[in-house]
Amino acid sequence: MNSRFVSMSRRTASWLSAPGMETAVALSSRVRLARNLRGLEYPHSANGDTLERVVTYVAAGRERSPKLAESAYYRGLDLTELDSDFLVERHLISPAFTESDDHKATLIDPTEQVSIMVNEEDHLRVQAIVPGLNVRSAFKIADTYDDELCAHLEIDYDPDFGFLTACPTNVGTGMRASTLLHLPGLVLTREIDLVIARITKLGLAVRGFYGEGSDVLGNLFQISNQTTLGVSEDETLDNIELITRQIIDEELVARRRLISEAGEQIEDKIWRAFGILKYARSLSSEEVMNMLSAVRLGVSLGRIEFLSLSQVNELLLLSQPAHLQMYYDEEMDPTRRDVVRADLVREKLRAADPRSEP
Amino acid sequence: MNSRFVSMSRRTASWLSAPGMETAVALSSRVRLARNLRGLEYPHSANGDTLERVVTYVAAGRERSPKLAESAYYRGLDLTELDSDFLVERHLISPAFTESDDHKATLIDPTEQVSIMVNEEDHLRVQAIVPGLNVRSAFKIADTYDDELCAHLEIDYDPDFGFLTACPTNVGTGMRASTLLHLPGLVLTREIDLVIARITKLGLAVRGFYGEGSDVLGNLFQISNQTTLGVSEDETLDNIELITRQIIDEELVARRRLISEAGEQIEDKIWRAFGILKYARSLSSEEVMNMLSAVRLGVSLGRIEFLSLSQVNELLLLSQPAHLQMYYDEEMDPTRRDVVRADLVREKLRAADPRSEP
Repeated sequence: MNSRFVSMSRRTASWLSAPGMETAVALSSRVRLARNLRGLEYPHSANGDTLERVVTYVAAGRERSPKLAESAYYRGLDLTELDSDFLVERHLISPAFTESDDHKATLIDPTEQVSIMVNEEDHLRVQAIVPGLNVRSAFKIADTYDDELCAHLEIDYDPDFGFLTACPTNVGTGMRASTLLHLPGLVLTREIDLVIARITKLGLAVRGFYGEGSDVLGNLFQISNQTTLGVSEDETLDNIELITRQIIDEELVARRRLISEAGEQIEDKIWRAFGILKYARSLSSEEVMNMLSAVRLGVSLGRIEFLSLSQVNELLLLSQPAHLQMYYDEEMDPTRRDVVRADLVREKLRAADPRSEP
Repeated sequence: MNSRFVSMSRRTASWLSAPGMETAVALSSRVRLARNLRGLEYPHSANGDTLERVVTYVAAGRERSPKLAESAYYRGLDLTELDSDFLVERHLISPAFTESDDHKATLIDPTEQVSIMVNEEDHLRVQAIVPGLNVRSAFKIADTYDDELCAHLEIDYDPDFGFLTACPTNVGTGMRASTLLHLPGLVLTREIDLVIARITKLGLAVRGFYGEGSDVLGNLFQISNQTTLGVSEDETLDNIELITRQIIDEELVARRRLISEAGEQIEDKIWRAFGILKYARSLSSEEVMNMLSAVRLGVSLGRIEFLSLSQVNELLLLSQPAHLQMYYDEEMDPTRRDVVRADLVREKLRAADPRSEP
């Protein structure tokens, strides 16, 4: 197969492995900025020539910026479908971005904290992702890249409205800040629907693991702002951070309640999930996320002491379809993937000091 | 609690632990003989005085027979409900026998191979049980006890009909021979219904784990003869042995077919069951039998090498409700039993050389 991402697949994404704040609940924080080049039609209405000019301008801007020049640069046409799926699973590009290869490019910084999509919904989408709850740090990182773009390209900015974007919902800051949260406690206590209703009323969106339009898998929820006009970046970041902290507190209360009111059932659920992961010979990607969710709960509750949260996070990442194929450097049909996924999960769990099992 | 059966519960029944023939499929072979005392009404129509005389005669006969005197002797009234349930689980008495305590007695030989129920459906029911496929050996053992009874008590025998019994279906030899078979292969290949239909046509009965009126659990089936009149013991034993051998062959063919046609699914099923047994914190008695059935299949197929069939058989026996309570010498409600059952299963599986796990 020899994809350029084989070696990347064998290390955990930094946003999942590095230490962070509130990692018992918050997997990651992300900020993306929507930017456009002045005087060029937005991607949805632009013709091929225009889109190609966008790519050319960005490539040239990258050459002029020592910081941007350090990032890897991929033309859409150079990526296979599997490469694209891999980058989506790694949360470096969006699912929508993979729908066509034409006139697209992606920049990824060496630490994998920052990626820039060229000709997604906007000409430029800069994204920074960090572990745990820390939207402000994600913003700072994205902001330094935004400064580079503004210094080396002509970015569309209106003194009244702010940044101009393809979709009116992004005009203003052009920023979306989000946190990825693991909420098994709220799901098991059935409080999640109330929490989602409240968050939605506060003007935030709740989505699944892969963002917009994706299903909730493994009790992973993404919370993000909807408003970009008439608010500052600071206000948005404060708001996301505040509401995320509230949800984290509610999740931790729910976990404690579960343990005190249904401790034996919860332990049973956690350890059965661990037993299945440790011994199954075939695991679908949906099942593995659900089982890992229970194991992650077990680790965060101190019930599974010989695994760390980042080991569980690594498995969440690696067991995804494109990651599996990259990791083993082999294209596989779904049935084969399920078998290989189970092999990989077993191997990783076995490596995690089995003698310390209770 | 201090039941007299606590120590018995901590050793495996000899019919499940000793080496035997065809143990990959056949758990045990059993023969029971129905006998009655001459001149006394059968239990269903006898009054209390008559039943009490039966008990007295049998107790006196036991005293006169050095062989019978070696067996433990329990009056029904001396046994708690838990004691009775325990003996049922150990297949030493029948479920029907436990319905009332009055005017009942039980003899159990020191090796647990033979038990005699007094005032079940007949005045006397002698039963011998041996491991694996060996109805002839079970018959020989039961027969020596029958000889003792005939030597020391007046047994109802008609030169034309043979032994007379409470139910006409037992008249003649008074013998029922049965084998307890583990048939996961035939169940998984869905051939079991055809096999059962064929056995039934041949005049044999197919029952569940606890005999007459019991459900099939853990893919365990009991095959027994229905005819006792106009056939000799030898003919019946040959017939049961022959048909059991046929079923065993079909089961082994089905297992090989499963492995060659659906090897990965079967391995997955086996190892998931093992993983659940090894890690669950609560296990119902039904679930444990189904999971142990899959593990037993795995052991017999050489897929789980660090466990023996007799270790699995021991768990099948010990994880039953009354056994659990005896083992821990504590009365428990069903919820507590499920937790303790999971503890016991985990402890036993952990003792089975975990380092040799593949």
